[in-house]
Amino acid sequence: MEYEEPKFFHVMQYAAAADRDVIDMVSGNPDWEPPTALREALREYADLPTDAFQYPPSEGLLELRESIAERRNVDPSRVVVTNGTGEANYLAMARAFARDAGDEALLMDPVYPYYPGKVNMLGGESTLVPTERDGSLDVAAVREAASADTALIALNTPNNPTGAVYDLDAVREVVAVADDVDALVMADEVYDHFDLTGEFESALALDSDRVLVTSGFSKSMAITGFRVGYGVFPEEHVGDAKTRHMLVNVAGARPSQYAVQHALAETPPDYYAAARDLLRERADAFTDALDAAGAEYNRPEGAFYVLARFEGFPGTMANVKRLVDEAGVAGMPGDAFGTARDEWIRFALVTPRAVEAAERLVDYFGD
Amino acid sequence: MEYEEPKFFHVMQYAAAADRDVIDMVSGNPDWEPPTALREALREYADLPTDAFQYPPSEGLLELRESIAERRNVDPSRVVVTNGTGEANYLAMARAFARDAGDEALLMDPVYPYYPGKVNMLGGESTLVPTERDGSLDVAAVREAASADTALIALNTPNNPTGAVYDLDAVREVVAVADDVDALVMADEVYDHFDLTGEFESALALDSDRVLVTSGFSKSMAITGFRVGYGVFPEEHVGDAKTRHMLVNVAGARPSQYAVQHALAETPPDYYAAARDLLRERADAFTDALDAAGAEYNRPEGAFYVLARFEGFPGTMANVKRLVDEAGVAGMPGDAFGTARDEWIRFALVTPRAVEAAERLVDYFGD
Repeated sequence: MEYEEPKFFHVMQYAAAADRDVIDMVSGNPDWEPPTALREALREYADLPTDAFQYPPSEGLLELRESIAERRNVDPSRVVVTNGTGEANYLAMARAFARDAGDEALLMDPVYPYYPGKVNMLGGESTLVPTERDGSLDVAAVREAASADTALIALNTPNNPTGAVYDLDAVREVVAVADDVDALVMADEVYDHFDLTGEFESALALDSDRVLVTSGFSKSMAITGFRVGYGVFPEEHVGDAKTRHMLVNVAGARPSQYAVQHALAETPPDYYAAARDLLRERADAFTDALDAAGAEYNRPEGAFYVLARFEGFPGTMANVKRLVDEAGVAGMPGDAFGTARDEWIRFALVTPRAVEAAERLVDYFGD
Repeated sequence: MEYEEPKFFHVMQYAAAADRDVIDMVSGNPDWEPPTALREALREYADLPTDAFQYPPSEGLLELRESIAERRNVDPSRVVVTNGTGEANYLAMARAFARDAGDEALLMDPVYPYYPGKVNMLGGESTLVPTERDGSLDVAAVREAASADTALIALNTPNNPTGAVYDLDAVREVVAVADDVDALVMADEVYDHFDLTGEFESALALDSDRVLVTSGFSKSMAITGFRVGYGVFPEEHVGDAKTRHMLVNVAGARPSQYAVQHALAETPPDYYAAARDLLRERADAFTDALDAAGAEYNRPEGAFYVLARFEGFPGTMANVKRLVDEAGVAGMPGDAFGTARDEWIRFALVTPRAVEAAERLVDYFGD
């Protein structure tokens, strides 16, 4: 495979090199504090005896797996702790293609850019399936696209980049489609703590042996650099995931797992609620400004992102760069997320300057 | 893939459940202290601002890559920091098979057990090539085994489990064989700091665009659980490795990379020399005892391990368990390492009780 620099690196570098102040709304890195217990646990870890610095179990520290299993209401044997949600997605996809049940992955459009990359690396073929205008699942479109060659249907809810929170009934119908064509459903729920509707339900509630749920602590604990994620695999698929995880990574990083394990046990619900409140405020202020700027947009039901469309200003890389230079705001070109939203620009709300950025957009686009 | 519990887990569990005191010589986890600077850096990291907790660059923290590049005398663009040496080996092997230059991997026998597992996961076929009785490379055997279907020749020096340190001239000849059949050579040098001969030379000295060198800090800094390794890839192969690394893991763990980066900069050569001295003493005492027990063995030139053969006591799993129960010493059955040494048992020297274990073996096997 040739190395292709991800578009978000390209935009971030362009913004960093700009000859003016630019507000970065490109990356998905939280800007708020991690849980206090996480910092405390890291300090504590630094002083542990040498044996605590050696390999954790390949599938993750037992206490961490048990905490995850308890929270997700599954047996701990189904949980594999991974190097971030990214690895969990890789394991889920690899399993889907290893079943000799087809080579095609159905990905919802707009799509998180790593998904087609992973499918390609694994020798599969991606088919983009449009979602509704508001980002919700178009079950009929999924049904129409599915065939005997479909090995995987990948969902991401709450969704990056649309902010949609999928209705559990729609997910159930997608699982029924998967059942018809002998495919697996990967549900990437890494933004589950950032459900602003209060109505998100995990695909684990469907209790289906076709559903592989992935998630992690990168977003919920504001630690994308710690690389602690996990997959919850049905019993018949967990062996493949454990083997592949061991052969690729041996194990995940123990300092990270130790810190997350303690933070998971000791962090009160208030912490997560405060982050949601912060995002809700930013989303409100930002979308108010988009109204003032005359833009079309998706009000996020969850996750960190707002997709916006400015009349006569399609979300090309050239226009994104123009916005950096002329408005001092950096977003992501919509065509990074498939074909459905190439007119749009994605703005990540993970900056304390989101409101200031919105004002800049009003100045730039407003009448 | 079915999940198969690694044999070393099985032996460790058996030893832990034994109804007596057992000295664990199974795992390859160092039992000595990590560098002081590593613990200090972790404490420091715990107090850094939130942005230091977010994604490091996918290919690793720049300062860490630069330090590695300087030490290995290569351009930093060739270095990819990985989730341990295990991931670096995966990336190297994946690249070899992705070149459409064959499906076969030549692995030296005895073999590190993860190698054939990785080859199998990647859709390749392993061929075991015998080494000499002392563990050194049998170049003629490699040449004879190589064919147009050979995509990869995997070397590990200093070697686990034989303790052999390969002669650079022999490695050069193997690279020439790879050149003849259009294969890549992976040189896993994770034990490079544990060269007891003073004569180890990295395969990077060959300056060949067929040589992919992997290594890491798990052993040299006594931190197998931190998961910081790296690959040094020739220019034409580094793009594939970076892409695959990004698509599988996004990035490695930043707390671990931060700690290793500081430890690498601040740890004096004495630290590594002291660990070597400790191992040399243990190897001497252990092999003296093996003499007294009438065993055949390889005196390790490097790494952490002694392979020993006791007359009339082949290194089967059954006999390894008998040794746990009757002598209170746990080793690894030789057949875990391919076919060449199934009469032998591997003992890891990473326990302060290595001498005591040796005495137990003398009592058990001695006249």
